[in-house]
Amino acid sequence: MSRSIVKAEKGTVYLVGAGPGDPELLTVKAVRLLATADVVLHDDLVSDAVLELANPRGLVSSVGKRCKNRRVTQQEIHAMMIDSAKRGLSVVRLKSGDPMVFGRANEEMNALRASGIRYEVVPGITAAFSAASAVQTSLSDRRVASKIILLTAHHASEKDQAEPLWKGKLPSDATVAIYMPGSDYAALQKDLLAAGLAPDTPCVAVSCAGTPQQTMQQTELGMLPKLSAASAPVVLLIGDAMASAEMKPNSAISRVDKLLGNVIEKIEIPTHN
Amino acid sequence: MSRSIVKAEKGTVYLVGAGPGDPELLTVKAVRLLATADVVLHDDLVSDAVLELANPRGLVSSVGKRCKNRRVTQQEIHAMMIDSAKRGLSVVRLKSGDPMVFGRANEEMNALRASGIRYEVVPGITAAFSAASAVQTSLSDRRVASKIILLTAHHASEKDQAEPLWKGKLPSDATVAIYMPGSDYAALQKDLLAAGLAPDTPCVAVSCAGTPQQTMQQTELGMLPKLSAASAPVVLLIGDAMASAEMKPNSAISRVDKLLGNVIEKIEIPTHN
Repeated sequence: MSRSIVKAEKGTVYLVGAGPGDPELLTVKAVRLLATADVVLHDDLVSDAVLELANPRGLVSSVGKRCKNRRVTQQEIHAMMIDSAKRGLSVVRLKSGDPMVFGRANEEMNALRASGIRYEVVPGITAAFSAASAVQTSLSDRRVASKIILLTAHHASEKDQAEPLWKGKLPSDATVAIYMPGSDYAALQKDLLAAGLAPDTPCVAVSCAGTPQQTMQQTELGMLPKLSAASAPVVLLIGDAMASAEMKPNSAISRVDKLLGNVIEKIEIPTHN
Repeated sequence: MSRSIVKAEKGTVYLVGAGPGDPELLTVKAVRLLATADVVLHDDLVSDAVLELANPRGLVSSVGKRCKNRRVTQQEIHAMMIDSAKRGLSVVRLKSGDPMVFGRANEEMNALRASGIRYEVVPGITAAFSAASAVQTSLSDRRVASKIILLTAHHASEKDQAEPLWKGKLPSDATVAIYMPGSDYAALQKDLLAAGLAPDTPCVAVSCAGTPQQTMQQTELGMLPKLSAASAPVVLLIGDAMASAEMKPNSAISRVDKLLGNVIEKIEIPTHN
């Protein structure tokens, strides 16, 4: 059987999702592109374990923009991608989670289009889903949650401090996932109560989902401000479906992650062409 | 450096996301579990290209439930998982996309818990995100879309024909992704207009995202009923962010999927332990 091997193409920019941090949760395509790219430009939250998969002969550079301490501007990121591609290099623009969620992918793609640079998007596992896997609870449940709503507290506050998280009423049959909830859980609680959620609505905060540093906390909306601060990235899952969240450490994870020594496994992907 | 190899453990059930269909978009963990599981129980929509990665010495069985033609009941799926695990086999329960979205994962996990079976969830790329990658457009955009809402038309109609897709007003700064939109686009249009969306709201329908069969159609909400029927799975993306959807076939995809002959590539994942 013939096989397809994905390699990063010269002169092309790949916007790649790095997933939650565990390299086992990268897509096969992401692993192959990382391993062959000439240049990797990554966000702050991309884990070291993922970056270890980058081409050892390539350039790996952080272009993260920490809150209020912008080390690299968005324009500089555009210029780095475009200049590298124009010089005939292959570029992986590596974003935590999925590249199409709560980042500036559209601005980056617009800049690439305007410069005539070829690009491709490779999806990744986004935080709401890695968190749901971590607490072994479906975001939807046909009995209590027929809708899934992804929000970010960070962007709203960046744009306008007075902007509430949600205008009007949130559906009661939804699971709400809040990305980058920040540390002001009292403000979040106020917005969510104002949007009509009951004080006894179950809440789960998952920090560093899918990594060895993963932590989980469970509470109710009425007690949200009492949650402890946790290491970024944090995602907050809110809704009746979260009543069945499993908060005990998942024993299966440690079992399957155990070391098996210096073994290298081949992954063969049959092509569908 | 030591390396970790994930293998399916005996007596354990893995709820695994199969992603959109392209095997390159499976997670590394999913590939390894598929390759080593004794039993694979999969939904209808899981692609043949993904199933080709299953352990050739294992049992691969479809447990799909087509609309109104239930071949395998939910109770039978539970029994197959539990019986196999109790017999000491490793089981992959393979679900299209991500296992925690619009499926019956909670019911399956409840059954496993009740029987004392170890299980683990492995996330996958869900349709909204593979579709966003296909049309090279971010689901969020800080200028026009600060919210992402995942809905399903299928489940709502299953439960109650009179149930609208959304009660009250949908936020105007959201991207709405409708899973399993079905064929009654006129009913969807009616619900979305009633929820306050403007007739000129951009809509994109992506069928078989991330596979060689992928098709994309672009329209406006006012013209939604004129969309052609497309092969399942279809996801409908609606919102102002979709104005910048790229509808031309992505030339990069065909380039990176090209055959490179009978080459087998090693993927080495350094462990983070």
